[in-house]
Amino acid sequence: MKNTTLCYIENNGQYLMLYRNKKKNDPNGGKWIGVGGKFEAGESPDECLCREVKEETGLTLTRWQCRGVVTFCSDLWPTEYMHLFTADGFRGSLQECDEGEFAWKEQKEIPDLPLWEGDRIFLRLLRQNEPFFLLKLEYRGDTLMRAILNGSEIPL
Amino acid sequence: MKNTTLCYIENNGQYLMLYRNKKKNDPNGGKWIGVGGKFEAGESPDECLCREVKEETGLTLTRWQCRGVVTFCSDLWPTEYMHLFTADGFRGSLQECDEGEFAWKEQKEIPDLPLWEGDRIFLRLLRQNEPFFLLKLEYRGDTLMRAILNGSEIPL
Repeated sequence: MKNTTLCYIENNGQYLMLYRNKKKNDPNGGKWIGVGGKFEAGESPDECLCREVKEETGLTLTRWQCRGVVTFCSDLWPTEYMHLFTADGFRGSLQECDEGEFAWKEQKEIPDLPLWEGDRIFLRLLRQNEPFFLLKLEYRGDTLMRAILNGSEIPL
Repeated sequence: MKNTTLCYIENNGQYLMLYRNKKKNDPNGGKWIGVGGKFEAGESPDECLCREVKEETGLTLTRWQCRGVVTFCSDLWPTEYMHLFTADGFRGSLQECDEGEFAWKEQKEIPDLPLWEGDRIFLRLLRQNEPFFLLKLEYRGDTLMRAILNGSEIPL
């Protein structure tokens, strides 16, 4: 079991997306994702968020919102509880990242990028301004088998 | 590190409270708390919620809301991430609990009960209908040393 954060930083209708193309054997290799990582000892979700964003982007967040908790189940990996954030306040300048390349992407273009299937679901929920949600995603390998939103299965 | 749930079941302005007086060496002994427990393997927060409420109370939840995530840090216990719920829909009949005695309590009476100091904070946030929140509570032994709400320290 692990606890993590993922953040989409917003600016003028664009999200800061990371194209993962730098690490060997990266499970996210070739996909566009947000910014985040694992909780360190004693961190709250928002402390992890701010540290990970600072480390990976160089930016200091000044305003954020927790939008949901996503439970990832998989036949290959331990269960992951991902605290999903958006952030629309920050200062500093974007730095290079050793995990991939950053690009600001229009929210409406994002569904056309190579993404995890389940990420499309929560990106849609963010776009639709869904109130705080609990989403469970069940993967077999790279294939999404089942998605449960606030206790009800949703069609894939 | 552990992930848990805590739920206050609501009915006619009352919360279902559990007076912990049955287990030896119960860290919650002598205090009034809500209903909940630890995540089992592969459970999402709401799956854990529904299972724990069913096991402890006999009630089946039909409507609930995740109101916050509370990070408990302590010099004595591993860090706990508690998913805080209220639930205002359920069916079935209340059963006996082997951890304590249940009573329905008026929300306004609850601050007068023996409670954990930090519980008073999140019970107040629930009463004030605070939107989804992240609260970090730092304990030394039974004493609350620090409380951080959505990234800002609050006076104790």
